[in-house]
Amino acid sequence: MKLYGYFRSSAAFRVRIALNLKNLEYDSAFIHLPRGDQSKAEFLGVNPQGLVPALETDRDTLIQSLAIIEYLDETHPEPPLLPGDAVGRARVRALAAIVACDIHPLNNLRVLRYLHRSLGHDEAALEIWYNHWIASGFRALEQLLADGDKTGRFCHGDEPGLADIALVPQVVNADRYRLDLAPYPTITRIFDTCMQLDAFAAAHPQQQPDRGT
Amino acid sequence: MKLYGYFRSSAAFRVRIALNLKNLEYDSAFIHLPRGDQSKAEFLGVNPQGLVPALETDRDTLIQSLAIIEYLDETHPEPPLLPGDAVGRARVRALAAIVACDIHPLNNLRVLRYLHRSLGHDEAALEIWYNHWIASGFRALEQLLADGDKTGRFCHGDEPGLADIALVPQVVNADRYRLDLAPYPTITRIFDTCMQLDAFAAAHPQQQPDRGT
Repeated sequence: MKLYGYFRSSAAFRVRIALNLKNLEYDSAFIHLPRGDQSKAEFLGVNPQGLVPALETDRDTLIQSLAIIEYLDETHPEPPLLPGDAVGRARVRALAAIVACDIHPLNNLRVLRYLHRSLGHDEAALEIWYNHWIASGFRALEQLLADGDKTGRFCHGDEPGLADIALVPQVVNADRYRLDLAPYPTITRIFDTCMQLDAFAAAHPQQQPDRGT
Repeated sequence: MKLYGYFRSSAAFRVRIALNLKNLEYDSAFIHLPRGDQSKAEFLGVNPQGLVPALETDRDTLIQSLAIIEYLDETHPEPPLLPGDAVGRARVRALAAIVACDIHPLNNLRVLRYLHRSLGHDEAALEIWYNHWIASGFRALEQLLADGDKTGRFCHGDEPGLADIALVPQVVNADRYRLDLAPYPTITRIFDTCMQLDAFAAAHPQQQPDRGT
C-alpha cells in the first residue's frame, strides 16, 4: 500500500495511526501542501479532490481519511478500531465526526488561505478563528467523554480506536496554535495515554521523513 | 424514535431520508436554529454539541448524521445503504464525506454567523464563500461520479444509498444559493433520480411541518 500524505496533515496523521495500530507496512508519497503539490495534475490523477490522504491499495485508490480507516478495519479486523455493538459504534463514529466534520474542515490549509488571501484576514484573526472552532468542538467532546460511562483509558473502553485516532491529531493541532487545554482534562488524559503507544507516537508529524519541509 | 431536527438543516435532512428509505416511523422535535434553540439548556441536555440532528432511540441518544445513518443501516439492514464489498463501502463513505466533511461544515449557520458577526462580512461575501466551497467539492464529486464505473442510476449502482443521502441535501442548498449547476450534469441527474423517490421527496425541507419558521 502507498499512502499519499504530508507530515502536517491531520487527516493523513489519522491514517498513519490506523496503519500502525493494524501493524500494516506501507510506502509513503509526500505531497507538499504549502507548495501546492496537491493541486498539480499528477496528484489530481490520484485524488481529484486534491486533498491528502489517499491510500493506494492493490484494489483501488481510496480517499477520505475516515472512509480509509473503516476500510482498513473491515479488511484487517485485528485489532478492531470500532466496538462490537451498534450503539458503541455509533458513539465512536460520532466522537470521530465531531473532530472530522465540525472542527478540522474549518481549520485546514485551504480554508485558512481563503480567509487570508480572499478575505484579507491577518495571522491574529486566523489564530482566533482556528482556536474558536477547536474550543467549540472540544467543549462538547470533553463533556461527552467525561460523562460517558463507556469512556475508559481511551475514548471508548480500554483499547484505542477510531475516536482516539481522530482526537489525537486535533490535540496536536490545538497545541501548535497554543490553545489552552486546561478546560479539557479528559481529552488531555486520553491524548497522553495514546501518545505512550508506539502506533500514535510514530505517526506524529515530527516523526515523519518530510517534517519541516 | 424521536428525531431532533430543523427543516432547513441538511444534516437532519440526511437522517430523514435514511429513516424514510428504511421505512421507519419516528416522532419529530423541531429545534429552531435561527432563534438559537440548539444552544438552550434543554437541548444541550440532548446533544452537548448543540447541533441537530439527534436521534433518540430506545437504547441511547445518537448524534452526528453519518453515525446515525450507519447505526440505522446496521440495526435495520434492509434496504442496505452501503454496498456489500469493502472497496464499494469505502467509495460510498468517501463520496458522502466529501459533502459531510469538506462542503457542509463550512457553510452551516454557525460558520456563516461567525463570518458575519465576528468578521464583519456582508451577505454578498457570504454567498461567494458559500458557493466557493460547494463548487470546490462538486467539481471533485462530479469527476468521481462521471468517471466511476460503479456509478449507476445513483451514486453507487442502481439503488440509493449513503452517498445519495449526503448529496441530495447539498444540491438543495446549492440551488437555494443559486449556484449554477450546469457544470455538474452527473450530480444533477442523480439528484433528479433521487427526488422521484418518495423517501427523498418527503424529506425535503419544504415538506416539513416546521418549514418557514
